[in-house]
Amino acid sequence: MVSPARKIYLDGPRPDIRVPMREISLTNGSSVVLYDTSGPYTDPAYTPDLSRGLPRLREAWRCAGGGTQLARARRGEITPEMEFVAVREGVTAEFVRDELAAGRAVLPANVNHPESEPMIIGRNFLVKINANIGNSAVSSSIEEEVEKMRWATRWGADTIMDLSTGSRIHETREWILRNSPVPVGTVPIYQALEKVRGRPEALTWEVFRDTVIEQCEQGVDYMTVHAGVRLAYVPLTARRKTGIVSRGGSILAAWCLAHHEENFIYTRFRELCEIFASYDVTFSLGDGLRPGSIHDANDEAQMAELRTLGELTHVAWEYDCQVMVEGPGHVPMNKIKENVDLQMELCSEAPFYTLGPLTTDIAPGYDHITSAIGAAMIGWYGTAMLCYVTPKEHLGLPDRDDVKAGVIAYKIAAHAADLAKGHPGAQAWDDALSDARFEFRWEDQFNLSLDPETARSFHDETLPAAPAKTAHFCSMCGPHFCSMKITQDVRAYAEKNGMAADEALTAGMREKSKEFAERGGRVYLPLADG
Amino acid sequence: MVSPARKIYLDGPRPDIRVPMREISLTNGSSVVLYDTSGPYTDPAYTPDLSRGLPRLREAWRCAGGGTQLARARRGEITPEMEFVAVREGVTAEFVRDELAAGRAVLPANVNHPESEPMIIGRNFLVKINANIGNSAVSSSIEEEVEKMRWATRWGADTIMDLSTGSRIHETREWILRNSPVPVGTVPIYQALEKVRGRPEALTWEVFRDTVIEQCEQGVDYMTVHAGVRLAYVPLTARRKTGIVSRGGSILAAWCLAHHEENFIYTRFRELCEIFASYDVTFSLGDGLRPGSIHDANDEAQMAELRTLGELTHVAWEYDCQVMVEGPGHVPMNKIKENVDLQMELCSEAPFYTLGPLTTDIAPGYDHITSAIGAAMIGWYGTAMLCYVTPKEHLGLPDRDDVKAGVIAYKIAAHAADLAKGHPGAQAWDDALSDARFEFRWEDQFNLSLDPETARSFHDETLPAAPAKTAHFCSMCGPHFCSMKITQDVRAYAEKNGMAADEALTAGMREKSKEFAERGGRVYLPLADG
Repeated sequence: MVSPARKIYLDGPRPDIRVPMREISLTNGSSVVLYDTSGPYTDPAYTPDLSRGLPRLREAWRCAGGGTQLARARRGEITPEMEFVAVREGVTAEFVRDELAAGRAVLPANVNHPESEPMIIGRNFLVKINANIGNSAVSSSIEEEVEKMRWATRWGADTIMDLSTGSRIHETREWILRNSPVPVGTVPIYQALEKVRGRPEALTWEVFRDTVIEQCEQGVDYMTVHAGVRLAYVPLTARRKTGIVSRGGSILAAWCLAHHEENFIYTRFRELCEIFASYDVTFSLGDGLRPGSIHDANDEAQMAELRTLGELTHVAWEYDCQVMVEGPGHVPMNKIKENVDLQMELCSEAPFYTLGPLTTDIAPGYDHITSAIGAAMIGWYGTAMLCYVTPKEHLGLPDRDDVKAGVIAYKIAAHAADLAKGHPGAQAWDDALSDARFEFRWEDQFNLSLDPETARSFHDETLPAAPAKTAHFCSMCGPHFCSMKITQDVRAYAEKNGMAADEALTAGMREKSKEFAERGGRVYLPLADG
Repeated sequence: MVSPARKIYLDGPRPDIRVPMREISLTNGSSVVLYDTSGPYTDPAYTPDLSRGLPRLREAWRCAGGGTQLARARRGEITPEMEFVAVREGVTAEFVRDELAAGRAVLPANVNHPESEPMIIGRNFLVKINANIGNSAVSSSIEEEVEKMRWATRWGADTIMDLSTGSRIHETREWILRNSPVPVGTVPIYQALEKVRGRPEALTWEVFRDTVIEQCEQGVDYMTVHAGVRLAYVPLTARRKTGIVSRGGSILAAWCLAHHEENFIYTRFRELCEIFASYDVTFSLGDGLRPGSIHDANDEAQMAELRTLGELTHVAWEYDCQVMVEGPGHVPMNKIKENVDLQMELCSEAPFYTLGPLTTDIAPGYDHITSAIGAAMIGWYGTAMLCYVTPKEHLGLPDRDDVKAGVIAYKIAAHAADLAKGHPGAQAWDDALSDARFEFRWEDQFNLSLDPETARSFHDETLPAAPAKTAHFCSMCGPHFCSMKITQDVRAYAEKNGMAADEALTAGMREKSKEFAERGGRVYLPLADG
């Protein structure tokens, strides 16, 4: 059977802007076009060669005048990246530019990562998701990580973060960057720590700065820096249940205490801004003091750091640096909104980028679910990008299956948030699938789902026969009876009797039932012929 | 290794009230006691014999005076079932009685189901979950269904519903009832439909009534009746995307249209109340017109039926019948709260029992997740019981693995709701697990989790060696570095330097960081020695 999913390209305002989409052809002749993060790999016309890397799409767009996407937006300029994103999101390029200029959105695009397809992160656009990959001292290879990146973007990851530790960090990142169609983020302090053989107290501004420059040169699009972990806030974590759970946060806390000095990323922040601005690397201001348990949610340490991140957001903006702000963590549902509201206020609407949050601590092995609950809610409340959590969270490094499980759970959360926010167009996808479901177009229902293979295989477990794919019943009710079939009969009957078609009669029946309620709706009273 | 999970019994106020709990012994000498729905099967002293059924725990409690739990609560009586539930929930028996008397909670306990362990459903108690099982014309056997019931309760299902269709419905239900330690619910119209060979128009009040009496005699604890599907509301569904997706709802809609008469369950509702009252069967007023897609959420048909369910709640209360009201369905996050608020108002706080809701339609194969999001939220807003959804929803009948996946996802949703509601004691579980996590007590972390086997196996995939279970690192960071370990160093350091211990100094440092902010927190200004 020919695949109903097809890679297509929407034309931009100029010939070199072709925006990738996934078109699903339906059996009723119509089709649905979906946002596509999978890159050239899903284009049959493209032959992958990991050693050569992806086409350098954005190379020709380099701006002689220089300046970050934010600087250029502030100048009123519309860049090719903005044009690309406008087509991708179905909005005007002016709207993209204005959201970027206001700092309400970021377009992570390191000048040295021309392979990436432009995308935008901001609460007035589709909610995005990030997938973390990366090897550690105890597991995984470069090949595996590159494959995880391709796998994650195939299922819908909008960005990926390479959190590699241990050896070969530089090489691993190089392979990922050259082959990644989405922006790549990192946490440079991890590599800096490796350079001082894992001893936080041995870190220096110079080692950190040089590591940042090394990564800027390679093309990392955004970097998490824990500039808000200030010496004065560390004692606020001492009585927590789970202390400091952010690796970057704990590294810097350890350094601050070892030297009894202020965090060097905080004191040298303006120098960092100059470096980031020269490559257009986007800041992801890390929440090194995020809560690691329900008990520690929204505590003083977390909020003190958030206030500092707000201060640093404005400093970064002085340098035309693009800024996202990271958020928790582990937060019970009743404390989630407070996080978004405070972040918007303190960080002047810079995009919020949250991990989960996990809404309970009791389900290790299922934290893609405990956190998808919090992620969907926080996305609805205004978070621009959701960092996925896999079933292996707290237990181990995600393998290929875990990466898929995490991405799917987060695509669900992000889309549920788009629906709740009333994002124009978000519901068309749900409507198309619901129509297919109601009309028993099984193949269309499978092909429109986030994971067609899984949907099809689950159906086939009970009704494998091909005819069943068109049968007007499903295994829940069996052939003798099906609610959907009855509903179709009801609709036919209603229409035959003009009950639905004839608004007047429909209104008349409503009138009757209203009278009814007025007469106290006594249950023994039979309804007069309506 | 001896299992750290042990079945224990809490003593009630009288010798024949022994309330089952699950005690988890921790390696640090402490223990955590958790609510346990698994019944005698997890008691090593009990030898199961499915052909004989479970011990008839409640037989001795039969009340000569008769009357439902609601009638007796209204009389100010405290029944053994209320005593049992009070111990189980950690509240006073008077509180249980008063919540029942107010109709804010139900205690489903058919006098003919003495095998069930008393439990309560109400928003001022722990949020409960229901697992649907049952065979259909195209799949599954009685043995499988009984095993699914035991499996579902082992993982935490508070009630189960037998939704069997096709042949041998009576026999399947008999085996489930005699062996179920939790209340059992049904949808009697399903069996009534089988009796008229699947032809809705052939249904009569008499066939339905006799089926209800047959099930009351067997011991069904609560029944879903779609009394709110009124003739006048049917046309309101004709323009929906997915029409009527409730099987019971569509059966009755078909009957109403075929005869062009009012729903006989609505017109004969008072007779039904007399029958339910005589066995203390709890009403679950079905939402036959619930939305089957995001598009149809909170529409006129749904709300018209809800108003009728409110009317019927008061009718049932006249007869001392216990009442729950069922809710949707498919609802985007932004429309969930409205459902709860309206239900509480229109149904005078009768417990709300919702299916999901699913927060998007695009993920068949993952609807345990799309719905866990909505379930957690609606539970927080005040829903008393959540009807699980398995990964097979819309695709097929759940097998054993699907049942477990659905139950775990819903235990997560229910517990997240308990946390958000600030239920006393809910957080102790999270705190115990977080302490174990922070202190690297891996075995305790596994044993305290909702699914210890899965948590342990995920950990072992990357760090199988037994020593790793006590190692002060995990596979995420590797042996050279671990944020939790560093946090412990930070804490030790902080305490050594009196930073955390010495409130005065801590305050002093806060003061300093405050001054800082006041001085504009210029980033070049180094912090004076604090």
